[in-house]
Amino acid sequence: LEESWSFLDTVESNFRPLVVIELAKGTKEETIEWLTKRIVDKKANGGAQLLIKPLVTENGVENIYLVGASHIRLLLGAETVGLVKECSDNSMRTFTYSSRKTFKHFADDNHNFLTMAECQYIIKHELENLRAKDEKMIPGYPQAKLYPGKSIVRRLLTSGILVQIFPLHDREELKKLSHSWYGRVKVGYQPLDDIRCYFGETIALYFGFLEYFTFALVPMAVIGIPYYVFAWEDYDKYVMFATFNLLWSTVILEVWKRICAILTYRWGTLLMKRQFEEPRPGFHGVLGINPVTGREEPVYSSIKRQLRIYLVSLPFVCLCLYFSLYVMMIYFDLEQWALDYHRENESNLSSLMLYVPSIIYAVVIEIMNRIYRYAAEFLTSWENHRLESSYQNHLILKVLVFNFLNCFASLFYIAFVLFDMKLLRQSLATLLITSQILNQFAESLLPYWLQKRYNRRMKKRMCSKKTDMDLSLSEQVNMEKEMGTYLGTFDDYLELFLQFGYVSLFSCVYPLAAVFAVLNNITEIYSDALKMCRVYKRPFAEPTANIGVWQLAFETMSVISVVTNCILIGMSPQVDALFPDSKMDLVLTVALIEHLLLAIKFIMAFVIPDKPRDIQMKLAKLEFESLEALKQQVKAFQMQLHFVLIHH
Amino acid sequence: LEESWSFLDTVESNFRPLVVIELAKGTKEETIEWLTKRIVDKKANGGAQLLIKPLVTENGVENIYLVGASHIRLLLGAETVGLVKECSDNSMRTFTYSSRKTFKHFADDNHNFLTMAECQYIIKHELENLRAKDEKMIPGYPQAKLYPGKSIVRRLLTSGILVQIFPLHDREELKKLSHSWYGRVKVGYQPLDDIRCYFGETIALYFGFLEYFTFALVPMAVIGIPYYVFAWEDYDKYVMFATFNLLWSTVILEVWKRICAILTYRWGTLLMKRQFEEPRPGFHGVLGINPVTGREEPVYSSIKRQLRIYLVSLPFVCLCLYFSLYVMMIYFDLEQWALDYHRENESNLSSLMLYVPSIIYAVVIEIMNRIYRYAAEFLTSWENHRLESSYQNHLILKVLVFNFLNCFASLFYIAFVLFDMKLLRQSLATLLITSQILNQFAESLLPYWLQKRYNRRMKKRMCSKKTDMDLSLSEQVNMEKEMGTYLGTFDDYLELFLQFGYVSLFSCVYPLAAVFAVLNNITEIYSDALKMCRVYKRPFAEPTANIGVWQLAFETMSVISVVTNCILIGMSPQVDALFPDSKMDLVLTVALIEHLLLAIKFIMAFVIPDKPRDIQMKLAKLEFESLEALKQQVKAFQMQLHFVLIHH
Repeated sequence: LEESWSFLDTVESNFRPLVVIELAKGTKEETIEWLTKRIVDKKANGGAQLLIKPLVTENGVENIYLVGASHIRLLLGAETVGLVKECSDNSMRTFTYSSRKTFKHFADDNHNFLTMAECQYIIKHELENLRAKDEKMIPGYPQAKLYPGKSIVRRLLTSGILVQIFPLHDREELKKLSHSWYGRVKVGYQPLDDIRCYFGETIALYFGFLEYFTFALVPMAVIGIPYYVFAWEDYDKYVMFATFNLLWSTVILEVWKRICAILTYRWGTLLMKRQFEEPRPGFHGVLGINPVTGREEPVYSSIKRQLRIYLVSLPFVCLCLYFSLYVMMIYFDLEQWALDYHRENESNLSSLMLYVPSIIYAVVIEIMNRIYRYAAEFLTSWENHRLESSYQNHLILKVLVFNFLNCFASLFYIAFVLFDMKLLRQSLATLLITSQILNQFAESLLPYWLQKRYNRRMKKRMCSKKTDMDLSLSEQVNMEKEMGTYLGTFDDYLELFLQFGYVSLFSCVYPLAAVFAVLNNITEIYSDALKMCRVYKRPFAEPTANIGVWQLAFETMSVISVVTNCILIGMSPQVDALFPDSKMDLVLTVALIEHLLLAIKFIMAFVIPDKPRDIQMKLAKLEFESLEALKQQVKAFQMQLHFVLIHH
Repeated sequence: LEESWSFLDTVESNFRPLVVIELAKGTKEETIEWLTKRIVDKKANGGAQLLIKPLVTENGVENIYLVGASHIRLLLGAETVGLVKECSDNSMRTFTYSSRKTFKHFADDNHNFLTMAECQYIIKHELENLRAKDEKMIPGYPQAKLYPGKSIVRRLLTSGILVQIFPLHDREELKKLSHSWYGRVKVGYQPLDDIRCYFGETIALYFGFLEYFTFALVPMAVIGIPYYVFAWEDYDKYVMFATFNLLWSTVILEVWKRICAILTYRWGTLLMKRQFEEPRPGFHGVLGINPVTGREEPVYSSIKRQLRIYLVSLPFVCLCLYFSLYVMMIYFDLEQWALDYHRENESNLSSLMLYVPSIIYAVVIEIMNRIYRYAAEFLTSWENHRLESSYQNHLILKVLVFNFLNCFASLFYIAFVLFDMKLLRQSLATLLITSQILNQFAESLLPYWLQKRYNRRMKKRMCSKKTDMDLSLSEQVNMEKEMGTYLGTFDDYLELFLQFGYVSLFSCVYPLAAVFAVLNNITEIYSDALKMCRVYKRPFAEPTANIGVWQLAFETMSVISVVTNCILIGMSPQVDALFPDSKMDLVLTVALIEHLLLAIKFIMAFVIPDKPRDIQMKLAKLEFESLEALKQQVKAFQMQLHFVLIHH
């Protein structure tokens, strides 16, 4: 009976496919057998105790497997990954199987207590934590070495036996979600909680940030419009606008932390304990003893990594930066040439020509950013970081530095070397608008169109006229497995970061930037939503409590923007006219104001609490309760002990 | 048998007095009886299960009681307060009674496993956590109200029935410690581990910081001497000195964090869990329900507190700041007068007279600081903060702002309004040296002398010629209870903070400041050590993992010093001479350098890890182990559950 417990479930009608495993064509039979055995095997035997079923299509059995789990297995898994759910008394608590009755909406027959995304996350976690016992290699593949504790799925992935693992879409839910999300044009909030239920916290938090950021830009845009329309260029109005922008950008970043805390508290991720970080899949090295865990695993000397970083990566990044500056100088030559051309033969066409160099440069910048992105990924992965977090930090640092210079160097050069405010305004506008158009196109519309064309061809081949809803499971799986993979929120945040740079760095020169940013972000919400729902495979949910290093990146940008804006205001002819006698006084005044603004910024960041008061109270309450519980345990134990001591 | 368990121990010969409780003269008999009963009562009955013994002197029983505890009680208490001790395998772990055998130096008959300071801390914790059950008032004192959960000892203290609680000195240990600490003149480190064993972590950390800071200032002092002696005033040398100072001050503050982590890891406090914070003793309000704990306790509306802060405290602080500036203007009048006098009748005496205003001003500053300190304490306590940490933060903020302005306003005024570098140098030197002398005198030497005189009189009265070592217990207690109470490290850190300001804010004008700081700190170590060992009552040990808000205060000061030093360098005639044509270029260059230095500072603070790599590894290992243990528990539970499910 015990042996067949898991198998029994697989043939039951309640098997709900959650995750798809695609093995390479021609994978050996013994490997498949071994893998399935390990997946269904009991926890006590080191298995994952999940359910697995081959996908049967008209063409017979392909190497595609569907993974699911019994209801109780998922609940136990929820405890293992440390999910936090809402209790009947509206407080958030870490879910445990033994206390399951105290949770809101829990009933033994309610299979919707865990969202589908949570179930898929649990299955991914269980599969990834399926570890080699005494196997020395993957059966059938002597070159795919294993050692005790190595994640089997990761080894299968790196040796190419496992093509991909992805969670299945839920066509019905997806239709509901996409209707309420982007199906109709409406003014209002996105259904963040539904997005979180379907795609998980990381993606929901990105859309939450995008929406918040758009709303936060509206005041800047509203104030910016009259400046542009009426061409207000008085000193005091300018200073007021820039000062408002600077303080506003500090406030919005601080307030975001609070909103983020509210969202992630509601979603339970604010309270989730950090899991111990395992080595990232690509990490390799010679077998040794990990000093922290005491386990045998690959180790790679930190000195070698440092050498790779400082002797290869750093020079390469510097070279790229130099190249970017070189391209910038070519752009200025082009600009000069266009200006000369316009001066010689003045016409409508030639005045349009003035914009051509900027547009070309904007396109080149985008191309360079994308190429550099691949190079940075390759280099960072070659640096062989042990942890995913360390890999991500090095990648983000590399990409941010290059993107910042690549996008803004020409603007800094125009502003602070050429002192040409007219060119700055024109260049800023062209760069901003071109990059926005390019991004929207490359990120969402192009893949959507490609995907649509592919789907049409697929359907034609299947000779069916069914809608998406009527597709059989095997058709759905075959369609989804060909979809592109969503590579995470990195590029989306990067785009927002650069946009924030365009808006804030030179806000006092081009007040209309915020207007374009708002317009772009509104379409961005729609195109990103389309991308998530229609273009890409469903991604695995990833719990997260904040936007991580991006908060720091945005804050740094807002500090830099204080400096640039103060200098720009100081350079404006209106301010110049206020200090007719002494340029010295002008510079000193500007420096004083800059320092004051920076001081106010830091004090504001310090004074505004990162979490709203009611969230603080709820967290304090939870901490108090867990300490109380611990105290009770200790007390009970001590009393027992005293009792024993007295009676002996 | 159970009833008498605690009492049995009290009459045993192994009763070791640890803590002294002094009740007010004429305390009612029923109160004493009730209190003693509660202290010795079993944990199960809500008692503290400690041992208590009245102190018997020649004059009969006074209202002084000695508190101790059995060995096992202390071990259980160590678990309750969450002490972290070293294991046999050299790792640090939270002590639990059940795992006691795995700890280094543990043996059931080794009564030195816990240091005396730890034992006293445990007893203090147990006494403070002795809480009212159903008592409505303290027996015999109907006006001293109690409610369930109120700390009895705190109510006794606030209603004046309990005069004081203090831990006893250990004459033998103290003699050993004082010999190795300040008993002989030597070059070398302080016995920090011994200090920590005797006085606890907070005080040991202060001395650690003082020592580290002194060592860190040595390079500045060494480089500063030739600047003063040879009167180097070239532009490049100056800039080099100031730049070195600025970067050095960043480095030493970052490195301190690492050293602090090493020390507190070794002492176990880095790993100690934060205890839930109870309301501070002085907090009062009407009885209500605490939303966090759900317990009945005094609550005080946050709005009322805010009103008190913004309508009373803030205006008062501003008034004090105004008054301080007013006094400063009087000082400048005096300075002018002394200068005029010197010009009229030039003599040796009149040139000495030049220093008099600064000295008077320095004394006035010290007096104002001290008076303001009392006012700030009174105001902050009147603001009625619920938590000790919030009280401390408000107090420190008030005191720091005033002290900063009071001490440095005149220097800023001289430097940036009067542009008088000679006066700045003179004023800085006088302020620094006078304040150092005053502090050493007021803090240590005066109390030492008073104490010595008092002791002599005491002994004369007792008509004995015994040395300190031969004193009987009752004589020792009677002597110690009259000693002053050490009020914490606040004033000591404040002194160092102001010293750091003198050294770093204007370092490029007066390179000798670091030399005086080093000299002062060396004597400060000795006089503070003397103060701790001979002048004050032994303080209770207080576990701490860092120097808290002072780290932030020092870092802020070092940021401000970057700004002031850059301006000073820009103002120097040597630099002026480098830009003969354009003052504009000068100012711009200085501003650029300042921004670069600030950027380097922040990057350095970001790049230097707060904890050394090996401590990081050890912490990761502990975290891994506790997660593993949790996982094992969950797994064991899940298997049990599966088993049950299968067999039903």
